[in-house]
Amino acid sequence: MYGAGDVRIESVPDAHLIEPTDALVRVTHAAICGSDLWPYKAMEPTESGRRMGHEFIGVVEGVGADVRSVKRGELVVSPFLWSDGSCVFCREGLHSECLHGGRYGFDDVDGGQGEAVRVPQADGTLVALPTVGDDDALMPSLLTLSDVMGTGHHAAVAAKVRPGSGVAVVGDGAVGLCGVIAAKRLGAEQIILLGNNPERITLGQEFGATDVVRERGEEAVERVRELTGGLGPHAVLECVGLEQAVETALLITRPGGAVGRVGIPEHETTPTGVAFWKNASVGGGPAPVRAYIEELLPDVLEGRIEPGRVFDRVVDLDEVPDGYRAMNDREAIKVLVRP
Amino acid sequence: MYGAGDVRIESVPDAHLIEPTDALVRVTHAAICGSDLWPYKAMEPTESGRRMGHEFIGVVEGVGADVRSVKRGELVVSPFLWSDGSCVFCREGLHSECLHGGRYGFDDVDGGQGEAVRVPQADGTLVALPTVGDDDALMPSLLTLSDVMGTGHHAAVAAKVRPGSGVAVVGDGAVGLCGVIAAKRLGAEQIILLGNNPERITLGQEFGATDVVRERGEEAVERVRELTGGLGPHAVLECVGLEQAVETALLITRPGGAVGRVGIPEHETTPTGVAFWKNASVGGGPAPVRAYIEELLPDVLEGRIEPGRVFDRVVDLDEVPDGYRAMNDREAIKVLVRP
Repeated sequence: MYGAGDVRIESVPDAHLIEPTDALVRVTHAAICGSDLWPYKAMEPTESGRRMGHEFIGVVEGVGADVRSVKRGELVVSPFLWSDGSCVFCREGLHSECLHGGRYGFDDVDGGQGEAVRVPQADGTLVALPTVGDDDALMPSLLTLSDVMGTGHHAAVAAKVRPGSGVAVVGDGAVGLCGVIAAKRLGAEQIILLGNNPERITLGQEFGATDVVRERGEEAVERVRELTGGLGPHAVLECVGLEQAVETALLITRPGGAVGRVGIPEHETTPTGVAFWKNASVGGGPAPVRAYIEELLPDVLEGRIEPGRVFDRVVDLDEVPDGYRAMNDREAIKVLVRP
Repeated sequence: MYGAGDVRIESVPDAHLIEPTDALVRVTHAAICGSDLWPYKAMEPTESGRRMGHEFIGVVEGVGADVRSVKRGELVVSPFLWSDGSCVFCREGLHSECLHGGRYGFDDVDGGQGEAVRVPQADGTLVALPTVGDDDALMPSLLTLSDVMGTGHHAAVAAKVRPGSGVAVVGDGAVGLCGVIAAKRLGAEQIILLGNNPERITLGQEFGATDVVRERGEEAVERVRELTGGLGPHAVLECVGLEQAVETALLITRPGGAVGRVGIPEHETTPTGVAFWKNASVGGGPAPVRAYIEELLPDVLEGRIEPGRVFDRVVDLDEVPDGYRAMNDREAIKVLVRP
């Protein structure tokens, strides 16, 4: 990406092993992320450009001398951040804060929207997938474990969803829809989806949303109150990040409830006074999706959850610029890339 | 209180039973609260005045026909809010949100800084104390169960203090000092007290603070980092509410950690971006102290905790205005009233 709206497909030097802890992965499935749309909307033009993509599945083509957990020929999924799996934060399940981790597409590390990626800290980062074959119908759902399903799950965990919880999910994008899946999976009784895109809402209902609120702002707050006996939902998953969405999330939460935030915040400040006075907690942040893959994987493999349904368009590498355009125009919920 | 700095002692009609769920309590011990200093600093002058006080212990002089849990002659402690003990929020331990509860000193309900109080919802509100005699040395500590010890405990609970936690307590006022007690009681290993009043700090160290940070702002953040191996404390108890204190609390928290807020917020907005990016949660609010009395009472009765040591001045009713002045001038940590 060279600037807002300017995505180009270019040849770069082949990815190759550098550190003994690296793996080289040939990408078979990648995705465009909602967070990729932030630079797509607003990035200053640059001459050097920026490698894009951080969600991918691929086949290991080689490993450094120290790599033990994956081997050549294996199909692997990568979380959207790489991490060593052994530092104090990784051991606490907060791989997003790994002391030796980092982001794809920065420094010497390739982006996932390409043919191959050098994966640092391969032992801590990659998870080998059972032999499903790389064109298996499960692949889109497995790919969501690299980011969007883990992020929806993180929102539900941060919002303390429990069996019987009343839940609201703010946002009908791919993360919000995965939030619906996560809330249902954790036993939520009522799941109110706040959104207004007819196709996304239909998918959300198929995923488990019991109620839909199409209004915004004060009307949305009023409507959620009506649907929850005047008290509000125990758990609110904030999956947008825009100011109005965050405010709505804080306002609708039941006293003593919890907001789980995963939407990238539009603003650094938040009107948390409303949360303080009703003893609602606010948690969440960039999801440590690596921590969740083992927990979510069996449900994907056995078909109990189908987060891959958020992909409603498939493109090859040359079509990636149009994939960005389609997601930005809200023509597509989420785009899968087959390099 | 008739306005900022204007506290008067006046005769009012005798408190008396109105509802069948009321109890009439003759106050033996009351307190001036840090939150009483807010109107003391800033209240607009009024002609009618406002009844003050919401922390008290007293003897039951009479009960309404429906009251079952306390009886005439019993010594009781009241939490700073009254609550029915049976609504959906009380059953969840969030008595501060009781659907039929309220605040002392408002509407027809007396304030605690007086000779007698009509206590609504007596069954849900009052807790009978063992026969310790009303001048027993335990009385100051028992009185803290009405607010300040329960509030410090709430901060520690909201900050998720666990055995082995690293903790920071922002503020060396009575609530902060009770936060130190609460953190130690819940098994914290390191307790860093942020404050700069020599006497309060000494008391905090006696309560269990292992480290003291006297700096403020950026220097305080730096110092806490040094004391925690660069990572920050898992649990931060925000016991002030002023903007700088809240910011400091958010900045020092370890990634994945939690801030428990009980300081009354100076501002409605909070710079939570810093918390989002490191997955720190922010919780807390007005403490449901009624929920904590049974848990804390045995530790007070058996002398394992001595929160009553935060009282460093005793006044009679006529001296209450000077008690406000002394607390406001930081001459006294907390003032006990013997009507």
